[in-house]
Amino acid sequence: MRVVVPYAATEPKTRLTGVLDDEERVEFARDMLADVLAAVRDAGREPEVLATDVVDIDAPVTIDERPLTDAVNAVLEGTDGPVAVVMGDLALATGEALADLFGTRGDVVLAPGRGGGTNAVVARDPAFRVDYHGTSYLDHLRAAQSVDASVAVVDSHRLSTDVDERTDLVEVLLHGEGAAADWLRDAGFELASDAESRVRVTRASE
Amino acid sequence: MRVVVPYAATEPKTRLTGVLDDEERVEFARDMLADVLAAVRDAGREPEVLATDVVDIDAPVTIDERPLTDAVNAVLEGTDGPVAVVMGDLALATGEALADLFGTRGDVVLAPGRGGGTNAVVARDPAFRVDYHGTSYLDHLRAAQSVDASVAVVDSHRLSTDVDERTDLVEVLLHGEGAAADWLRDAGFELASDAESRVRVTRASE
Repeated sequence: MRVVVPYAATEPKTRLTGVLDDEERVEFARDMLADVLAAVRDAGREPEVLATDVVDIDAPVTIDERPLTDAVNAVLEGTDGPVAVVMGDLALATGEALADLFGTRGDVVLAPGRGGGTNAVVARDPAFRVDYHGTSYLDHLRAAQSVDASVAVVDSHRLSTDVDERTDLVEVLLHGEGAAADWLRDAGFELASDAESRVRVTRASE
Repeated sequence: MRVVVPYAATEPKTRLTGVLDDEERVEFARDMLADVLAAVRDAGREPEVLATDVVDIDAPVTIDERPLTDAVNAVLEGTDGPVAVVMGDLALATGEALADLFGTRGDVVLAPGRGGGTNAVVARDPAFRVDYHGTSYLDHLRAAQSVDASVAVVDSHRLSTDVDERTDLVEVLLHGEGAAADWLRDAGFELASDAESRVRVTRASE
């Protein structure tokens, strides 16, 4: 099974603008990518990166400047056999969580992201295609049905947590075990709680 | 094993003020509770409700007006043998997710909630006590260590999703299979997406 890790190399993590500056977003995004690659290897697989531009990382990188959907579908079309697509911003991913994903039976296996996205998919049906636009989780359920593929859904907090927004940094500090969590701590981020609501992050420099 | 489901019967779901009116919050909270109780039964256990006030629900109800931490610790102190504490607002809980929780080995088994909370715990060590104040997930890890209890953490998106805020309603509409999801749809809530960010909920009357 190929394991492809998409990575937006150009202006990554734009929704963290205001929390991290341009250079910091690049560093943090690359550390998350490194964590995902390490988790894939811990799950016993060799990851490949699918990036929009050159990225300095310890893995084979295919560059495709097209939108995510087109780039991933080109991989699906060009591959005989199963393909897993694991997003490069799953900073909480572990080898165990990914091994569960890879080991789950089904023509199409989905790991939903919080907010309706699809954070990881295993495509074993050669006719299945992705569409990451909008509520992709529901779209992928329908896309699988439309090609008569059996579907399984993986229930994982770690895989449901893609890191796009400030509140997601809380999860990285709470549960992250890799470079991205270390980067945040080194950058001065820490957890802050006031009794009633959920924990926030604060930064020493703020 | 006792399975205790805490429920704040007095002014439930205050952080949904502005999204739901007082009466709606009571209805929605009670439907979530009913869904949790059904999931516990699907997992082969008999749930008990631990409520701050009288609640009209199809299960034995113990009323304890004290704060959550005190009320749960009174249960732990008063019980010989294991106790599971499953929050009453886990609208995505399924029998399968709870069976995984109940079946996970460990003196203390934790299901972290998004944002640092503890959405479910199985306490098999008689010395373990809860503290739901602040970042309770980290506090519970430390509390287990302090009594030399082994700890296991359950990785579940369904159990990590307690429903407190407007964005949580998205998860209920996406993944909920019970009365709470039906209630939201009947009340006019639906998913709305604009390409880039996560899916939101809108309401017909808004």
